Amino acid sequence: MNHHDWVRNELRELSKSLGFRYTPQEEIEGRLKRVRTGMRKEEMEALLIVQKMDFYYLTGTTQDGLLFVPLEGRPLLMIKRELERAKVESPLNDVVALKSIRELPSLIQTRFGKLPNRLGLELDVLPVRDYFRYQDLFQGAKFVDASLVLRNTRKIKSLFEIDLLRAAGEIGRRVYQEGRSLLEEGMTEIQFGGLLEAAAKRFGHEGLLRVRSLNYEAYTWHVLSGPTGGIVSQSDSPMGGLGLSPAFPVGASLRIMGAHEPILVDFGTCYHGYQVDQTRMFSIGKMRQKFVDAYNICREIHDAVLDEVRPGADCEAIFFKTLRLAERLGYRESYLGPPGLQTHFIGHGIGLELNEFPFLAQGQSYPLEKGMTFAIEPKIVFPGEGSAGFENTVVVTENGCEILTTLEEEIFEV
Amino acid sequence: MNHHDWVRNELRELSKSLGFRYTPQEEIEGRLKRVRTGMRKEEMEALLIVQKMDFYYLTGTTQDGLLFVPLEGRPLLMIKRELERAKVESPLNDVVALKSIRELPSLIQTRFGKLPNRLGLELDVLPVRDYFRYQDLFQGAKFVDASLVLRNTRKIKSLFEIDLLRAAGEIGRRVYQEGRSLLEEGMTEIQFGGLLEAAAKRFGHEGLLRVRSLNYEAYTWHVLSGPTGGIVSQSDSPMGGLGLSPAFPVGASLRIMGAHEPILVDFGTCYHGYQVDQTRMFSIGKMRQKFVDAYNICREIHDAVLDEVRPGADCEAIFFKTLRLAERLGYRESYLGPPGLQTHFIGHGIGLELNEFPFLAQGQSYPLEKGMTFAIEPKIVFPGEGSAGFENTVVVTENGCEILTTLEEEIFEV
Repeated sequence: MNHHDWVRNELRELSKSLGFRYTPQEEIEGRLKRVRTGMRKEEMEALLIVQKMDFYYLTGTTQDGLLFVPLEGRPLLMIKRELERAKVESPLNDVVALKSIRELPSLIQTRFGKLPNRLGLELDVLPVRDYFRYQDLFQGAKFVDASLVLRNTRKIKSLFEIDLLRAAGEIGRRVYQEGRSLLEEGMTEIQFGGLLEAAAKRFGHEGLLRVRSLNYEAYTWHVLSGPTGGIVSQSDSPMGGLGLSPAFPVGASLRIMGAHEPILVDFGTCYHGYQVDQTRMFSIGKMRQKFVDAYNICREIHDAVLDEVRPGADCEAIFFKTLRLAERLGYRESYLGPPGLQTHFIGHGIGLELNEFPFLAQGQSYPLEKGMTFAIEPKIVFPGEGSAGFENTVVVTENGCEILTTLEEEIFEV
Repeated sequence: MNHHDWVRNELRELSKSLGFRYTPQEEIEGRLKRVRTGMRKEEMEALLIVQKMDFYYLTGTTQDGLLFVPLEGRPLLMIKRELERAKVESPLNDVVALKSIRELPSLIQTRFGKLPNRLGLELDVLPVRDYFRYQDLFQGAKFVDASLVLRNTRKIKSLFEIDLLRAAGEIGRRVYQEGRSLLEEGMTEIQFGGLLEAAAKRFGHEGLLRVRSLNYEAYTWHVLSGPTGGIVSQSDSPMGGLGLSPAFPVGASLRIMGAHEPILVDFGTCYHGYQVDQTRMFSIGKMRQKFVDAYNICREIHDAVLDEVRPGADCEAIFFKTLRLAERLGYRESYLGPPGLQTHFIGHGIGLELNEFPFLAQGQSYPLEKGMTFAIEPKIVFPGEGSAGFENTVVVTENGCEILTTLEEEIFEV
């Protein structure tokens, strides 16, 4: 059988029978309209989309290719591999083969009658070598950074997107439930985490943690027990864990988890590209009182944030409010990391990537808007001993917010 | 307790008790020497290392930071987070805090008395926005692409590295063995793969698939059954599978695997950053004869490659030899992908990343050298029906090669 025929005739039905949800045409049109508003402000004639998640957002497919978005008229989707699949997956109408990057100018010229003079590119992630190649291909064009236009469009989620985030939250709820029957004394952190991950994937979790950054690496989850919960690592988070080696010094380790220790499980789940984050504590037998107390403090801070979340609330102000609350509760020293290594955010936007707008953080004074989604993650860290944390992902609604990670809030004691 | 004190006093011992292997000082010195030979050829005065795997290779740590390598004298390791951990993990002697990227010129000026006029950067991966920032910070400096110097250094593995690759292979062997008792009729692809992955992590597999590329995404493993084994996706490989959604259309799916179908398990394992690749076939009951035959053809092609591998053998010539062999055996149409979508390589270098030198591929005419490591992966694809494949990772020795993935070669029939 011919591969193209098979894809044309069979792929959609097989995919749908296995739960694939394709992005509707109206959804893509709404996104394009908002991106174009941003383009106009920055006086871009066109956008060339390279990065996978921006590409998925505007095309509905993640096949390998480039998307050219003129300020007006239909976008041109150019696919390196695999063309027929992209045609099935994307609701865009103009989908053509891109055999070599050298063809790019002629494809655009043929389709639009001219090349852009002012072209938007994702300069925050585009490699320099590719940039030089585009300079050769679009001689004389001025390139401008389109990353803020894209990130500002993506920060407000549609109902379609919120539905996918809810589904990711539902997978998370099931994973934590299953965790109760998986955790046993004598297990290593990575063993327990691996079983949680296998359960999550069985439920449709995609297992990726996408971060807009060159070097960020982590699993979608942490399982940290006792002292490893007190270790800071490479990333800007309150604790990083020990990890498996100097090559991957983050997250779960081969340490055997002991009874009564705090076991922090920060498990992100990803469905159709959309991620949610959630943290709860597990323990084998009753958890040490110091960490039960710290966990309750985290919940209290989390609830105080929830009280503030509504359209118009200032992101930085919420962060500072939690600092004052941690101080008042007597936890300022261990709040969001050990002294000298504390992070400066209590929430981060989340969607297709982990570091989207908004940031509820120092230096981020702007209002929350309806449709923003973010994780709220108060954490308390005691070096050498362990940490406690609580985290949910929420969406800003008309008057407040809705929690997308609906798992229970108590300690998971087994 | 203070986090710095804890790290200084406890981290090394805890890590070593859990199997961490630190890169020895002589190892780093040998690598630096070879990098500097390349730098001299390209007339670089210094190198600034940004990318995580180049950074690990030259420092032994993956804490967040930058490495400045002058042509002569001791390199300067500058750490954003976490400084005390980097001091434990790296054998380099000059390790300092980098509070902000703005400090970079003054740190270098203070330490070396001058700023470089000709500075090497990894332009194949460095984002444009960061490049512009370095242009501001090193006014008047000329930047040159250092990626080839680094990749050419890294392509020859030391005994220390080969030992880590062997350990990764040993994890792989245990995973496939355990696979026998995990696979059951009625399981989905992702369910089986998730359990294999959990087993691998329990054995110390790090679970990352590092590829030097902006957009590449996949698990370290494929589990493809029947028709999903015949589907091509975004990446340059013979088959990509269905995946879980249009956001991640690659690898295992929620399809239930049937009896007698070919189940292709391409499972990469990663130990201390070092990856090996291996592929074997599983089946529930006896596999359909068409795929047993195709599997045997893959083994025959693999063995024919092994016969050629030795220092001095030409990489492209080996690739073309396999094309002729596939033709002679009557499989040219389905070799390395479906017609029109066939890939043009039979082997790819592997180590800290999946796409290292050498490539046994069309257009890659250069000799194999002792210490090169690569995966050999003949695959045969029938659209709509499935695929067969066989793969090992080898290291080039004095007179031939050694297989690093020592698992058995028969079909895993359960």
